Amino acid sequence: MTTRQLLSEINKKKSFLCVGLDPDLDKLPKHLLNAEDPIFEFNKAIIDATQDLAVAYKPNIAFYEAYGIKGMQSLRKTIEYLNANFPEQFTIADAKRGDIGNTSTMYAKAFFDDLEFDSITVAPYMGKDSVEPFLAFENKHTILLALTSNPGAFDFQTKTVDGKELYKQVLETSKTWKNSQNLMYVVGATKAEYLAEIRQIIPDSFLLVPGVGAQGGSLAEVCKYGMTENVGLLVNSARAIIYASSGEDFAEKGREEALRMQHEMAEFLG
Amino acid sequence: MTTRQLLSEINKKKSFLCVGLDPDLDKLPKHLLNAEDPIFEFNKAIIDATQDLAVAYKPNIAFYEAYGIKGMQSLRKTIEYLNANFPEQFTIADAKRGDIGNTSTMYAKAFFDDLEFDSITVAPYMGKDSVEPFLAFENKHTILLALTSNPGAFDFQTKTVDGKELYKQVLETSKTWKNSQNLMYVVGATKAEYLAEIRQIIPDSFLLVPGVGAQGGSLAEVCKYGMTENVGLLVNSARAIIYASSGEDFAEKGREEALRMQHEMAEFLG
Repeated sequence: MTTRQLLSEINKKKSFLCVGLDPDLDKLPKHLLNAEDPIFEFNKAIIDATQDLAVAYKPNIAFYEAYGIKGMQSLRKTIEYLNANFPEQFTIADAKRGDIGNTSTMYAKAFFDDLEFDSITVAPYMGKDSVEPFLAFENKHTILLALTSNPGAFDFQTKTVDGKELYKQVLETSKTWKNSQNLMYVVGATKAEYLAEIRQIIPDSFLLVPGVGAQGGSLAEVCKYGMTENVGLLVNSARAIIYASSGEDFAEKGREEALRMQHEMAEFLG
Repeated sequence: MTTRQLLSEINKKKSFLCVGLDPDLDKLPKHLLNAEDPIFEFNKAIIDATQDLAVAYKPNIAFYEAYGIKGMQSLRKTIEYLNANFPEQFTIADAKRGDIGNTSTMYAKAFFDDLEFDSITVAPYMGKDSVEPFLAFENKHTILLALTSNPGAFDFQTKTVDGKELYKQVLETSKTWKNSQNLMYVVGATKAEYLAEIRQIIPDSFLLVPGVGAQGGSLAEVCKYGMTENVGLLVNSARAIIYASSGEDFAEKGREEALRMQHEMAEFLG
């Protein structure tokens, strides 16, 4: 998918909502646990209930790997379901990969070719040759960690490197990499006040913004400092939507929360 | 496995060799491609041919994920084969994971509980709460990226952060984390001259050292600057061993290369 297509969906739906699919068997509604594939059934119900309100879905790969081969089958069924039924949805493999060149190429093949995701999150620590293999894929997007939403972001990301915070170095350096037009960035909503400065470095790039809701970030702040003429934002919500209820009405309650967020987003889109 | 057990194996075998299991179907000997599970058959032959010369095996997870469910089944069979037949081997999931706390916990479960690896490589960019969930597992080891062997290491890792290179900040900061005794570090052999300073910060920790051989690092240099009283080194070799021959004699030729490295290591162990 191109960013132009993504923007068109955002404008059509008046939404820049990304739904995080982080299925934890301990939190799934009890009545689903007897299904042959509870995780897929859960995801499918959430997708069906929210697909007209969201423009992106982000399975968090850890939550599938933790269940071994069975979990990876649930992941595969989920992405296949999305691609077959809702090809207009932007899909994000939240995998936070990154390794030396030939290894990153293998990860890129796994998520872009084999699983057919539109994008993947990647960690920047190993530098240029660990990221460029992902950027080489046409119409695929690499979402580089810049400033994450967790407390540990202050351990290294905000430290000053050669006169500038590390996350800013990541933004500036990565702009010079080959095919950097395929880059998006993770910027946590819990650090929305940093967005103004971030926009000076990457005025147009799409940002994937976790941390609104459960982690305490504010949508208004994110829009105030981070929104561009072409929106440039995907705001992720996982727990608030997918665990809105632990009963049989989980999808319905999830839709209510998604609708609440979409209404709020529509206002900011004006 | 404890580091004491690992050290005992090193002393017994006069080897600190780690064999990297990075199976690429394009490079596998042709006669294996008709097997039901070529990757597992390849790994099994390499393990059988080198297990008396090596103390650790390191599957590079990307090379399994790239082949989807089938690849993950090959990985599972490989680790199960190792744990069942050679429980004295230290096993490393080269996965370079790292995410916010609850997600890192899921990755830790995937690799420590489900697949039963002894250790996993982890990226430090997201800081303390992204690493501590791995450290919480008893007798499991977290191998944090410090200074990697690729050219991109110079993009961020060697940049000066608050008066000190980023990789040194990673070493010093991570020492203060909970259960930091479970930490080991990745330090590339291509940057062996950095090892003397690294040893001033982490005098006793085990280092996983990639980059000897194919990537140009020198074993002598690594030992000179990095070896401690308790050895403190695991030197990885992948391509030089596993692709020593592309014929039916691949395991035999791989053993020859492993033997050559083990002999050299025995000399440094004195």
